[in-house]
Amino acid sequence: MRFQPILEYLPIYEAGKPIELVVREYGIQANKVIKLASNENPFGVAPAVQNKVAESVSKMPLYPDDSYHSLKSALSQKYGVPESQIIQGNGSDQIFDFATRSVLNPGDKVVQNGKTFSMYAIYSRQCGAEVIASETIEHDLDALLDLAKTQKPKILFLCTPCNPIGDALDRSDIYSFLAKIPEDMMVVLDAAYLDFAKTRDSNKNFEAKDIISKFPNVVYTGTFSKVYGLGGMRIGYGISSPEIIRAFYKLRPPFNVSQLSQLAATEALKQESFVESYLKSNLSELKKYESFADLKGLDFFESYTNFITIKLDKAKLNSSELFEKLLSEGIILRNLKSYGMNAIRITIGRPEQNETVIGRLNEIL
Amino acid sequence: MRFQPILEYLPIYEAGKPIELVVREYGIQANKVIKLASNENPFGVAPAVQNKVAESVSKMPLYPDDSYHSLKSALSQKYGVPESQIIQGNGSDQIFDFATRSVLNPGDKVVQNGKTFSMYAIYSRQCGAEVIASETIEHDLDALLDLAKTQKPKILFLCTPCNPIGDALDRSDIYSFLAKIPEDMMVVLDAAYLDFAKTRDSNKNFEAKDIISKFPNVVYTGTFSKVYGLGGMRIGYGISSPEIIRAFYKLRPPFNVSQLSQLAATEALKQESFVESYLKSNLSELKKYESFADLKGLDFFESYTNFITIKLDKAKLNSSELFEKLLSEGIILRNLKSYGMNAIRITIGRPEQNETVIGRLNEIL
Repeated sequence: MRFQPILEYLPIYEAGKPIELVVREYGIQANKVIKLASNENPFGVAPAVQNKVAESVSKMPLYPDDSYHSLKSALSQKYGVPESQIIQGNGSDQIFDFATRSVLNPGDKVVQNGKTFSMYAIYSRQCGAEVIASETIEHDLDALLDLAKTQKPKILFLCTPCNPIGDALDRSDIYSFLAKIPEDMMVVLDAAYLDFAKTRDSNKNFEAKDIISKFPNVVYTGTFSKVYGLGGMRIGYGISSPEIIRAFYKLRPPFNVSQLSQLAATEALKQESFVESYLKSNLSELKKYESFADLKGLDFFESYTNFITIKLDKAKLNSSELFEKLLSEGIILRNLKSYGMNAIRITIGRPEQNETVIGRLNEIL
Repeated sequence: MRFQPILEYLPIYEAGKPIELVVREYGIQANKVIKLASNENPFGVAPAVQNKVAESVSKMPLYPDDSYHSLKSALSQKYGVPESQIIQGNGSDQIFDFATRSVLNPGDKVVQNGKTFSMYAIYSRQCGAEVIASETIEHDLDALLDLAKTQKPKILFLCTPCNPIGDALDRSDIYSFLAKIPEDMMVVLDAAYLDFAKTRDSNKNFEAKDIISKFPNVVYTGTFSKVYGLGGMRIGYGISSPEIIRAFYKLRPPFNVSQLSQLAATEALKQESFVESYLKSNLSELKKYESFADLKGLDFFESYTNFITIKLDKAKLNSSELFEKLLSEGIILRNLKSYGMNAIRITIGRPEQNETVIGRLNEIL
């Protein structure tokens, strides 16, 4: 079989270890495992969403309404943009896939930050594009602007707050940056963690409606995987100019979001108090990790998300040693070695989970 | 924005009308609507699968085990092939997407039957490939072989039983056909409706294990959308040589099947008696439509599926007129005008649904 030449250079994606694997490999009971590795909502999902899905199981045989009318109408209200400027994705991941496939040809270039969400590069490389990253760990907008001008990429990815670091850009900096980007360069602005950022600092916030009306080349992406607690349901969305959304629709597989996922997401948008209470807990618990790192003399990145990235250069163990040790005890964190960093990323959990994890880190490090 | 040139020629996919739309447009109560348009399981989904999903709603926040161990292990047992030769898809649709993207470059060719599932051509065209179809409505393997030799396509799609016609090929014909196909040409063998065919005629059956061991260039695809009643959950799979499955994995987005979908599918594989009972009902109800068409003097295609395609050339109304008339009464069928046919495709429903539909057809036609 003669596969596309590009496939030769593509790695097979390996996700973080799921609870099931720890149960299988270490014989630890599933309910004893603490998984703070994938930035899932540690409080789960709002009871009303659970009820909605449980009472809708008889709808599983039916293909969803492929116009996703109810969901898009709810998102349209939330963001104040017309439905024609919204597209649903099988996770916001699928929006990155639509973005890359709509403009990239082999040999084209893509620019992104030094450390950022790994799927941007994977989707770009699937299209045969070359991915050029700036050198810094945290966002350096001057460096990105420089690359945008010299490399002339077809797409520039911006993730703020940024996964896996946690840093966030100021709105004013984002605006002045976007104003300098050529109109025919697509900018994907990944706002997966934005709710956390604006809870900590309103200067980090930006509005999809405002962004896309000023910059029709920007694709704003959001997800139901974080504050809404629907990571396992694979549902996200993109908001952009009608022109870009129309192009994405041409690449969208029919029924790209499952029946129960769209019902869950539509219901989740109504659960404001659940989200507010999670955001409040997340911020105060995040500060406990910061205090712990300060006390231990460990460096960390100031985070505007539901995770914290702690550097381990001054610690007794490196990130792989720490990861393996905790894994064998049933605590799953994210080793950032695959990002070329001696650092560990910890999702902020429920208070009792954080207490256990901080306690163990205090003993080990 | 300079989109890929191919996007200009791609249409935006429009799915069949969902129940929600009929409710909105005609003010008919949802529970009064009879939807026999999308070949969904009219008996729904097995109670055990419903229970499994309802009791798993608290897992919605967690990303699925990305190795999909439980599901693949169950499929591996069912088909007697190793897990390394199976890949799960967000519907079998996604397997077609992997197939086209793994081998097709702009200018490449794809060969398929005259009338067949529309997504093959859509995914192929997204890759810039040219789609060449044979001229007949039902499968003509000689014509396809001729096209395979003269056009040298990278992929040949074979759908048996064939949607939207319902005809099925004999196993012996499939085998002698595949033996004449060059080894470096990928053949996608879509078996979405195979359970229905083998219930009617065991000569129409073929085993994935046997096929892929004899023909490593074949990709066998299956789905949970039909006999298992999980159309809305978007879950299917591909079975092929380790080489092809490895290539597909390079294009697979992480977590491509939702948490609840994989739980539902794994449970559904255990519900053999539910499936048996549906298959039995389907066949006897299908024969009622055949008798009706015979009595009315209408031509139809002998079907090996859960739908029947009735030609309307000898009828009082054409397919669009019939479709619209029934739609306004809350009966949704599939108008095959978009396939260039004056015919209507009817999913075989539950006995009482079929009685109503046959009754109305008897009055109208």
